Amino acid sequence: MSSIKRCAVIGAGVIGAGWAARFVLNGLDVAIFDPHPEAERRARATLDNAMRARERLTLAPMGELGELSFVATLAEAVRDADFVQENAPEREELKRELLRAIDAHARPTALIASSTSGLLPSRLQAGMDRPGRFLVGHPFNPVYLLPLVELCGGSATDPATIDAAHHFYASLGMHPLRLRKEIDGFVADRLLEALWREALWLVQDDVATVAEVDDAIRYGAGLRWAFMGTFLTYRLAGGEAGMRHFLAQFGPALQLPWTKLMDVPELTPDFIEKLAAQSEQQAAGASLEALERKRDDCLIAIMQALRAQDFASGKTLAQYEERLFAKPQLAKSGSASPDVSKPLRLHEGVVRTEWIDYNNHLTESRYLQVFGDASDALTSLLGVDAAYRRSNGSFFTAETHMIHLREIACLEPFFITTQILHGDEKRVHLFHLMHHARTNEPLASAEQMLLHVDAKTGRVSPASSEVQRRLASLTEAQAKLPLPQGAGRAIQKRK
Amino acid sequence: MSSIKRCAVIGAGVIGAGWAARFVLNGLDVAIFDPHPEAERRARATLDNAMRARERLTLAPMGELGELSFVATLAEAVRDADFVQENAPEREELKRELLRAIDAHARPTALIASSTSGLLPSRLQAGMDRPGRFLVGHPFNPVYLLPLVELCGGSATDPATIDAAHHFYASLGMHPLRLRKEIDGFVADRLLEALWREALWLVQDDVATVAEVDDAIRYGAGLRWAFMGTFLTYRLAGGEAGMRHFLAQFGPALQLPWTKLMDVPELTPDFIEKLAAQSEQQAAGASLEALERKRDDCLIAIMQALRAQDFASGKTLAQYEERLFAKPQLAKSGSASPDVSKPLRLHEGVVRTEWIDYNNHLTESRYLQVFGDASDALTSLLGVDAAYRRSNGSFFTAETHMIHLREIACLEPFFITTQILHGDEKRVHLFHLMHHARTNEPLASAEQMLLHVDAKTGRVSPASSEVQRRLASLTEAQAKLPLPQGAGRAIQKRK
Repeated sequence: MSSIKRCAVIGAGVIGAGWAARFVLNGLDVAIFDPHPEAERRARATLDNAMRARERLTLAPMGELGELSFVATLAEAVRDADFVQENAPEREELKRELLRAIDAHARPTALIASSTSGLLPSRLQAGMDRPGRFLVGHPFNPVYLLPLVELCGGSATDPATIDAAHHFYASLGMHPLRLRKEIDGFVADRLLEALWREALWLVQDDVATVAEVDDAIRYGAGLRWAFMGTFLTYRLAGGEAGMRHFLAQFGPALQLPWTKLMDVPELTPDFIEKLAAQSEQQAAGASLEALERKRDDCLIAIMQALRAQDFASGKTLAQYEERLFAKPQLAKSGSASPDVSKPLRLHEGVVRTEWIDYNNHLTESRYLQVFGDASDALTSLLGVDAAYRRSNGSFFTAETHMIHLREIACLEPFFITTQILHGDEKRVHLFHLMHHARTNEPLASAEQMLLHVDAKTGRVSPASSEVQRRLASLTEAQAKLPLPQGAGRAIQKRK
Repeated sequence: MSSIKRCAVIGAGVIGAGWAARFVLNGLDVAIFDPHPEAERRARATLDNAMRARERLTLAPMGELGELSFVATLAEAVRDADFVQENAPEREELKRELLRAIDAHARPTALIASSTSGLLPSRLQAGMDRPGRFLVGHPFNPVYLLPLVELCGGSATDPATIDAAHHFYASLGMHPLRLRKEIDGFVADRLLEALWREALWLVQDDVATVAEVDDAIRYGAGLRWAFMGTFLTYRLAGGEAGMRHFLAQFGPALQLPWTKLMDVPELTPDFIEKLAAQSEQQAAGASLEALERKRDDCLIAIMQALRAQDFASGKTLAQYEERLFAKPQLAKSGSASPDVSKPLRLHEGVVRTEWIDYNNHLTESRYLQVFGDASDALTSLLGVDAAYRRSNGSFFTAETHMIHLREIACLEPFFITTQILHGDEKRVHLFHLMHHARTNEPLASAEQMLLHVDAKTGRVSPASSEVQRRLASLTEAQAKLPLPQGAGRAIQKRK
């Protein structure tokens, strides 16, 4: 379903707006229909949060954003959509009515997904003319960050619909989980609901406050649940004998009265008041916005930490980044074939808010990051991509000589020109010059020696013949350029 | 209870050995009693894991380790202990018998804690002569890393016992959670048990495999549970209207059949076989040791990521570190004032999870950040502090020549030595060398020219006379050192 270009989002509360943000950030045009007068303001606020999160989550190129539009009718929203995501409140009759209308107005080839947390797809699709293209795609808040989406078809769902939705959601950096059977609450919410119902009992019975229940999770098992679920955790708790030993040891506890879940606590007005009051106390005056940002920053930090471990959601993130880095970049200045006899303009950007020092200027180490991005752009031009890195190897920086000329402040734009000083079968000797993009003033230079390193041996090795050919051609084209100022120079010697 | 110096650990399975490791790493002597023939081997393996984890977790000084001994009788283990932690299997009669014996042989002032996951302290303490000093201290696996410990007294427990245990566990870097009421399963295990029982149903009914249940957690809610529990998460899901809105919206779902917990699945031989087989498949051949290390590394990475957010377990870690750093340090090499005639060792650290590239190695730009930190340490030694920066100015990097020698992986420790090549009224010419802290191998060098810049004019200007004096003294002390390899060199010129 790489053919999906336009999405419709029906209902833009917390979940719908989160979907819209994830779609837009992945370059898809989105039409939102939500009759609530505050819907547009809230959805734009969610998109702002998502943009902020995306900038912090990965340095992979963002590509063009999709266009976000707000339309007055459901029919208008779905008319040109390739994919429709429905996010109405959890009322079966309401959802059935909306899905019938979506089915009637959408093109016959469009896929239709519902974000329902637990209603059965067979019942939701019952009134549709083309129920085969319908499935549940159940996400988790914040939708623009959490990878999980549960996929569940109903009895009338075409299996190809599930395949297509799986492929589509995965292309957005998500982890689709396909259910083997249709069941109320699906898998994740059944687990959450069991925990939540028990938590309500604990608060109702004054065993713990809402803050204490949360602490019982986040200082203990919750830390493990971020990367290992309950079964793998218990396998480890079984020690060397694994799951069988764990079951022998803790199986009998299943007969102990360790849960009150034979019943459900009643949400009386008094109990609601108690929960709300304790929740206020727990928040300690922090605004929704502050809590959302803290949540997003913690999620980003955890996923980045797990990326370094190449595990769980960190692995999903790494795979998503690999695809983003691999996408062909559009030639920015309208020219398809740049003049390679001049220094190449391969990288540009804006000084990001997290790159600055206490003086509001680009901090020292981030200059090198930006020059590194320019080197990556060059080696990518030479033919080094993810497949090449796996099978052949890559260029590593052996030496860098950086000279600072002028400062650049937060959010100011820059570009880098790159001159090849020398290239041979194993080496690229280059000279980057960073310019302010508005004034063209030079800001800093970096002379670098890159060495080609073999993926398997980790040793310096010749590049592939195709990479050598491209490098030789560039080197030849730039051979007549004068040596740039600062190149070939040592730092002034000791007196 | 800073008076606690000696601990006894009764029963050294996964939990007991984890306690022993946490105690030893915090400088406490530990005597273990466990009649199992494999107990000592397993406990030492756990201590190895814990040492490895501790080295990666924090740069704070470790201090002296406690002594670990294995003794032949319970009486011998508890005789000199200030604190006894009991970790026998979850059989009430067995625990009562052991606790009576501990009570009889321990000194009257010793505290006695049980690690029980859910047995009631009032029943466990019933046979003790001094039940007032008994409480439940229920930890989570791995005990040497997870901060949570639930404290629960029985009807005969002296409140001062809970206070003392709270203080003691907190001093070990843990987060004690005091229960308001005595209840089967306490708080955390009731929540875990509810989720676990529902998970068993899902596998029994073939809705999901054990791996899919785990994925439903770790790609979704589990990521949030690492730092926010269920209540704060749902407060955010309520949007701007908070918990009340969430209850109004999702409260009705409590009446839906979203859990099977009105009953408990029976662990028939067939069902045990199914769970064990799926668990094997999930582990995909990974050994217990490999899984344990992955678990520990992920936990460390997450806690470090949350430390940067100053939130949840990250905050607990930061507070623990602050105390460790504040402890008076023994002079490492017996000398109070470092020898300034050699390269200075002013900066050290561990490769943080957010600093690495896709190959799990320290990324290029972060080398420069680390060298920048070393330069900051040097200028701080010269007298440049916040007040000086405001009134006089600061040193800025004009040029850097960096040479890469070897890679360093995530969570590995390093230190930097700094040689002053030249210093005058406006300039510091220096040479940093980064070393692996375990092997001492050189990893990278950075020759730098720093210029003193006036705070007001932004122009190069002489440093204050005091800064000049200190710089001259250091320069003089290092004048006889040979020029380090790589210094004064240009990158090889264009051919």
